[in-house]
Amino acid sequence: MSRKIAFIGLGIMGKPMAINLVKAGHHVTGFNLEQSAIDALVAAGGHGAASIADAVKDAEVVITMVPADPHVEQVILAEGGVLESVRAGTLVIDMSSITPQTSQKVAAAAVAKGVRTLDAPVSGGEAGAVEAVLSIMVGGDAADFAEAKPLFDALGTTVVHVGPSGAGQTVKAANQLIVAVNIQVLAEAVVFLENAGVDLAAALDVLGGGLAGSTVLNRKKGNMLNREFAPGFRIDLHHKDMGIVTDAARAVGAALPLGAVVAQLVASARANGDGSLDHSALLRGVERLSGREVK
Amino acid sequence: MSRKIAFIGLGIMGKPMAINLVKAGHHVTGFNLEQSAIDALVAAGGHGAASIADAVKDAEVVITMVPADPHVEQVILAEGGVLESVRAGTLVIDMSSITPQTSQKVAAAAVAKGVRTLDAPVSGGEAGAVEAVLSIMVGGDAADFAEAKPLFDALGTTVVHVGPSGAGQTVKAANQLIVAVNIQVLAEAVVFLENAGVDLAAALDVLGGGLAGSTVLNRKKGNMLNREFAPGFRIDLHHKDMGIVTDAARAVGAALPLGAVVAQLVASARANGDGSLDHSALLRGVERLSGREVK
Amino acid sequence: MSRKIAFIGLGIMGKPMAINLVKAGHHVTGFNLEQSAIDALVAAGGHGAASIADAVKDAEVVITMVPADPHVEQVILAEGGVLESVRAGTLVIDMSSITPQTSQKVAAAAVAKGVRTLDAPVSGGEAGAVEAVLSIMVGGDAADFAEAKPLFDALGTTVVHVGPSGAGQTVKAANQLIVAVNIQVLAEAVVFLENAGVDLAAALDVLGGGLAGSTVLNRKKGNMLNREFAPGFRIDLHHKDMGIVTDAARAVGAALPLGAVVAQLVASARANGDGSLDHSALLRGVERLSGREVK
Amino acid sequence: MSRKIAFIGLGIMGKPMAINLVKAGHHVTGFNLEQSAIDALVAAGGHGAASIADAVKDAEVVITMVPADPHVEQVILAEGGVLESVRAGTLVIDMSSITPQTSQKVAAAAVAKGVRTLDAPVSGGEAGAVEAVLSIMVGGDAADFAEAKPLFDALGTTVVHVGPSGAGQTVKAANQLIVAVNIQVLAEAVVFLENAGVDLAAALDVLGGGLAGSTVLNRKKGNMLNREFAPGFRIDLHHKDMGIVTDAARAVGAALPLGAVVAQLVASARANGDGSLDHSALLRGVERLSGREVK
Repeated sequence: MSRKIAFIGLGIMGKPMAINLVKAGHHVTGFNLEQSAIDALVAAGGHGAASIADAVKDAEVVITMVPADPHVEQVILAEGGVLESVRAGTLVIDMSSITPQTSQKVAAAAVAKGVRTLDAPVSGGEAGAVEAVLSIMVGGDAADFAEAKPLFDALGTTVVHVGPSGAGQTVKAANQLIVAVNIQVLAEAVVFLENAGVDLAAALDVLGGGLAGSTVLNRKKGNMLNREFAPGFRIDLHHKDMGIVTDAARAVGAALPLGAVVAQLVASARANGDGSLDHSALLRGVERLSGREVK
Repeated sequence: MSRKIAFIGLGIMGKPMAINLVKAGHHVTGFNLEQSAIDALVAAGGHGAASIADAVKDAEVVITMVPADPHVEQVILAEGGVLESVRAGTLVIDMSSITPQTSQKVAAAAVAKGVRTLDAPVSGGEAGAVEAVLSIMVGGDAADFAEAKPLFDALGTTVVHVGPSGAGQTVKAANQLIVAVNIQVLAEAVVFLENAGVDLAAALDVLGGGLAGSTVLNRKKGNMLNREFAPGFRIDLHHKDMGIVTDAARAVGAALPLGAVVAQLVASARANGDGSLDHSALLRGVERLSGREVK
Repeated sequence: MSRKIAFIGLGIMGKPMAINLVKAGHHVTGFNLEQSAIDALVAAGGHGAASIADAVKDAEVVITMVPADPHVEQVILAEGGVLESVRAGTLVIDMSSITPQTSQKVAAAAVAKGVRTLDAPVSGGEAGAVEAVLSIMVGGDAADFAEAKPLFDALGTTVVHVGPSGAGQTVKAANQLIVAVNIQVLAEAVVFLENAGVDLAAALDVLGGGLAGSTVLNRKKGNMLNREFAPGFRIDLHHKDMGIVTDAARAVGAALPLGAVVAQLVASARANGDGSLDHSALLRGVERLSGREVK
Repeated sequence: MSRKIAFIGLGIMGKPMAINLVKAGHHVTGFNLEQSAIDALVAAGGHGAASIADAVKDAEVVITMVPADPHVEQVILAEGGVLESVRAGTLVIDMSSITPQTSQKVAAAAVAKGVRTLDAPVSGGEAGAVEAVLSIMVGGDAADFAEAKPLFDALGTTVVHVGPSGAGQTVKAANQLIVAVNIQVLAEAVVFLENAGVDLAAALDVLGGGLAGSTVLNRKKGNMLNREFAPGFRIDLHHKDMGIVTDAARAVGAALPLGAVVAQLVASARANGDGSLDHSALLRGVERLSGREVK
């Protein structure tokens, strides 16, 4: 069933996602601060809007995909934002990665206008967005999730309803926690193995085949072996996410001893100028701590 | 080619490994402090010996599989041990998980007697030993590894030569480091998700499908969801292993900020009486830290 | 020189501070949500007000002393707050312990109204407030500090100008960081010494006499020896402060590896129900980690 | 009462200690591998020996002061060592800083020869040794401590009996734990304060006057303010000591979350080439983590 979708935020992630919705047969009207991304959407068969109000006024579904909490507040809650112009009954799906608290604030503001919301952050990066193989973690009402499911299926391959409003963001935060820690310990292992004179490539092969195996090891071992840190997922963004997860864990009284240490190490990487490198560059921090020359 | 093998140490791991060598067509003579394990080997087509000296005197290859460093020193280096009775030229393969330092000490003592050695610790646990699907990380000379390869292939599915003497132990230590950290961060994520009111089973499904996925998550999520901690791999043993990896990293000047914290948390689990539980019971420590009732 | 002072917030700290200003000869008009504290100030020779507006309208100096950031925003910035009613040129001194960011926000809002501000958090607790022996860390302009110095001298014995707006809060945050860590490591040492069978009282004596000596050791060793944890300074408040220091350090790119771990341990103490105990009760957390019965 | 004392190990610490015993009226015979130190003792009124055996053969009390565990084993337990030549009934006082385990091993070996022992490590550094103001932590029998007390009083000002054999070393280990952590958190605070633009010297003054005050802050703030890291106490030695304390805590089941992190940071300082600097140079590690130029 073709839906009328407004898509706000056509950045590195949002643009290919919007285009995938067009490919799936939907009527997608996009808005973005830079016109070039709108042009690309139009070229792919979508439509452009001159403002958020213009984009959402006839939409059945609104999707937002912006960098961080302040942007979500701006495009949904602020003057000129989605909630000002959207029709009652519309389903607003925020796919940005933000704090659970902001998602819940958005949900509460929407309820007051008769608008339904889902928080649906994604994992998988630019490649996952382009190839429509994202993982999507969704918080909100089960009925709203069911309605949105066909749209999510056009964007990703793992689509799961994980709980009420904010739960999608919580799971995304947990995802970033696990990923950061798995990368960091792999980096510690790499420096340990190299310092001990072990054949690193062979060691990573055997480690990957056992209980130490992980998606991080599979996907990032090349970066570590070759000291090749083009992103991928930037340390600056992971730093933002570690702020979200440590705050959210504090809010619910969960202890994160490893998470707290990793948050410091991610911050340290950023302070050392590695913010625009792939998060596998946490290896450089372990090298600094170990007194090695960092290449 | 059938080999004459002496197998010292027929415990939970050693007994099924020795039997798998018999099944592969080798002549295996076993020695163990408890006679019952020798009887089991004989029943499976192997042979028994009355002493280490008796077991190794005609062997082409000696395999040792004992719990920790002192046992290796006892069965290989001490009076009445392997090096006292073995013929020059024999290949001694220690498959115990010990410190790289002790492996190197064994290798040096063996060289002085004209005996060759490999360190070849394994990963995969009792099930892996029984089913002959162990991962085997081998340190020593490449030629000796090549000679032993057919024997290793009868015991495991991932068999990798990772470097000189001690390198096998180093890789095993790195394996235990990564596994402990991956379990601990999964436990932190579980408590965080539960405290936040998320559907944990759904969340772990979506986490497992993305960059946060790992063998630990796949194999241990059932333990965590059900609070079912029958080992598996006991915390007491992982505590021993964390001692090995922190000492070995210290010796080579590698920083392990996460490793050091996890070592404390594994020790804490043990101090709280969880030593005989599976290492996934690190979850109980996070629950304690988070003020939750531990079931 | 007697000054006309408005004092907003007559709680555990504020009330004795206001009374000390009366004793020093100043004309002090207090406002507090609960009338009983105002009555106490009046009984001591001060004056009461019916509202913030009423208290500040004729004041030369306004002092605020409230629990946390939201209260400061409420009493200074919000409708009905200090900045709405105060005369241009007045000096507003916030002595609450809050984030440097909020202090800077207050300062910026005040400048827009022609009002001068200092941030002047204190250390020393209720006893220090009553006995007028507080340490006071002051951020703001040097000239404003010089003007306020006689007032501070009526409240404390160590009064230091540490930098521009927010600098007082930054130093207070550093104070809480150091105190939390010094308490935690003392607790670790206590459990280590007791587990090892050492005479703890004798050991703490000798430790206190050397490079390990500290004010924390002097003042808190009795709490630890006797497991007597009546506050003093409550863990709940130190938890709030660890949130301030970790956020503030993150904002300025400073690494706090110990601070991050301690923040988790303080949060853990709170999650375990120790929030209303003295911060020396961090000892109980080390006992939990070490598998000891916590009395 | 003048005693006949053999003093083994006339290094940076041992030489001034032996001379202080001479000044107190004792008959001191010294032995050292380098003759120049013996000459200095003789010049101060002491006596020289050609070997350990020569030094101890007529001694009522033997004092050993050497760098680490292997040296203690060498000079006391090995062939040609103290226990081989000393008379039954002699009191052997080891003032080296070593593991409690080695002290207990020495004590057990001595008992077998009818020799009494005390472990009596010191704190206070070269200056403390020269000025006879050391802190001395003593493990062993109370009667032996009482006999040795007059000798200790010639060497230090804080002399405390803390428990049975090994207890002195345990307290010394706790001392080094607390000192390392107090230095590290001071370093974290310094970088935080500087990054935030605070007047550091003023801030340290006010911090020192409150609950954050410590001997470390008093003695090391100059090093930190001036980035002047001439030892003092070298990071290499503190690294050795962190190995002792983490091992000893592990042996008695005490959790050291901060201790474990600091041990990594001390090791990191050493790996970065700061091993011969004063331990206050942990500041350089915080600067590295914070991406600052390290001067």
